[in-house]
Amino acid sequence: MIEDKNQQRTDLGQIGEFGLIDHLAKNFEIKQSSTIKGIGDDAAVLDFKGDKVVVSTDFLVEGVHFDLSYMPLKHLGYKSVMVNLSDIYAMNAQASQVTVSIAVSNRFPLEAIEELYAGIQTACNIYDVDLVGGDTTSSTSGLVISVTAIGHVDKDNEVYRSGAKPNDLLVVTGDLGAAYLGLQVLEREKEVFKVNPQNQPDLDQYTYLVERQLKPEARKDIVKLLKDLDVKPTSMIDISDGLSSEILHICKNSDVGCDLYETKIPLDPQVISTCEEFNIDSTTIALNGGEDYELLMTISQEDFPKIKANPNLTVIGYITEKNAGAHLVTRADQKIELQAQGWKSFKSTED
Amino acid sequence: MIEDKNQQRTDLGQIGEFGLIDHLAKNFEIKQSSTIKGIGDDAAVLDFKGDKVVVSTDFLVEGVHFDLSYMPLKHLGYKSVMVNLSDIYAMNAQASQVTVSIAVSNRFPLEAIEELYAGIQTACNIYDVDLVGGDTTSSTSGLVISVTAIGHVDKDNEVYRSGAKPNDLLVVTGDLGAAYLGLQVLEREKEVFKVNPQNQPDLDQYTYLVERQLKPEARKDIVKLLKDLDVKPTSMIDISDGLSSEILHICKNSDVGCDLYETKIPLDPQVISTCEEFNIDSTTIALNGGEDYELLMTISQEDFPKIKANPNLTVIGYITEKNAGAHLVTRADQKIELQAQGWKSFKSTED
Repeated sequence: MIEDKNQQRTDLGQIGEFGLIDHLAKNFEIKQSSTIKGIGDDAAVLDFKGDKVVVSTDFLVEGVHFDLSYMPLKHLGYKSVMVNLSDIYAMNAQASQVTVSIAVSNRFPLEAIEELYAGIQTACNIYDVDLVGGDTTSSTSGLVISVTAIGHVDKDNEVYRSGAKPNDLLVVTGDLGAAYLGLQVLEREKEVFKVNPQNQPDLDQYTYLVERQLKPEARKDIVKLLKDLDVKPTSMIDISDGLSSEILHICKNSDVGCDLYETKIPLDPQVISTCEEFNIDSTTIALNGGEDYELLMTISQEDFPKIKANPNLTVIGYITEKNAGAHLVTRADQKIELQAQGWKSFKSTED
Repeated sequence: MIEDKNQQRTDLGQIGEFGLIDHLAKNFEIKQSSTIKGIGDDAAVLDFKGDKVVVSTDFLVEGVHFDLSYMPLKHLGYKSVMVNLSDIYAMNAQASQVTVSIAVSNRFPLEAIEELYAGIQTACNIYDVDLVGGDTTSSTSGLVISVTAIGHVDKDNEVYRSGAKPNDLLVVTGDLGAAYLGLQVLEREKEVFKVNPQNQPDLDQYTYLVERQLKPEARKDIVKLLKDLDVKPTSMIDISDGLSSEILHICKNSDVGCDLYETKIPLDPQVISTCEEFNIDSTTIALNGGEDYELLMTISQEDFPKIKANPNLTVIGYITEKNAGAHLVTRADQKIELQAQGWKSFKSTED
């Protein structure tokens, strides 16, 4: 690969805050009929004509949620939108708008921010959402991204974490653990690179894992699928912190217990082979890994015939009475209490 | 004042992310009938029954937008909500919900974050808005706050920056320049304190200035007043970056020019006396100071009788054709082209 030695580097200070917003927003088209006014006024104006409005917001902080040494800025832009759309879909709602705010230090040239916004734009195009607002400001240190996603849902179609009932089936989309393993692979390559910068990483056998980490997809398709199948889940949540933690959120909010079957947890073959290579337990990874952005839901038993043939949906257990507790039923048919390891961004200073 | 030597200091790492959200949210009541579901699910659910929805978002970054050496955390929480509500009111809309996300480093104990949220809560109570979501995460350095405000407006009642017409009156609420001068006073006291930490600051003659900087109020009352007076401005914007910059936004978006009269700009007596003391020009401060959070609007001449007796509204000029340009008409009756100094958060690295 021949490197361009004259890469353009435009200083953010030359452009200023107003200039930057105008510059970044000009490539974004408005496509949603609910967007009356996007970027360029004190606020965006939206019109959902009686639908319920759904709002979710998330932060992505450099050094905490991402490491720019292996996360390309375009992927980061894409992922920052996905993380938020995933929350909207977890309400059984349609995402229609996002606002994106960034705080950046002067070490980022304009071209870097353009890369970030190219990823945001790709996400907006593929997922059919409008960018309608945001704020750009300087930061004293790293890059901070705050995305707010806005969606809407027909009357009575929204699904909360709180509706699970005993005997409901516990259902998950896709497969689990790959994003976390992808992060482990990238971290390992970074350490190798530090020791030997000439070393070219060979990621061929980890392509799925790395893609799940760097370019996750929110499950917009599942909201449509559920509608087509005429299934309304009794509860739903997106898997950002790990299956274990999300199941416990549903149990706590719905005042129920559950039995989760270890043998039923869907794993990609690359997850299984890489866990063997790294000598770690694949169930632990699936339970606590996080960042899968799959959907976890509970479904009434009577809806089982509608979902049983579907390759996107895997039944992994069922809901029990609260006093039965929340358990993992192991391969050896032992019951272990589920614990939320999750992904803790606050590490104790005593660590 | 007797200092409590045993102030409680709870480490954020002990609580974790889920614990922190639960802990901070538990004191907030839901009061808006449009809030169907607040904090505690993947997204908030809002129902505006056909009204248009208005959304605005802003970042506040430590070291860029605030300095914790003189900004108490409670005031910071209050101000971070005000900054966003101000944008909603500038659309002639009612604010009804906010989401607040914070990234904090471990150097902040729980009690500090509680102070911040106490200010947010006070703002929510006084301005009658619900906190419906947010994210709490760790930060590698300072404190970053991202607020998204959501409001609603009756059909055809929204006011953009783009509706000003030649001959419309240029009208401003309150008075200008005090918040910026308050910042100068606080910066000076900080320098004095560095030299002599025993020195007690005497801020008695600057109370109004300091309050405008540390505890600004968004002009919710003006939206109501305009409705009561049966006046719909032709355009409106909030004054966050300075009068000059905001006038130019209206001129650019409305494709018009304007004449602004120096003698008409409303100034508080403390602004005038402090400008004399600091030997700076009060007009420069009013034009470029920023953070006033007053509203700037244009009003059709035929509405003049409805507003002329009102102490909240000051006519400071009028809109002209675009090719006439945007000018300040000075005390000496000279015309000077208006320039947007504003408040630039991106300083060039060459500075």
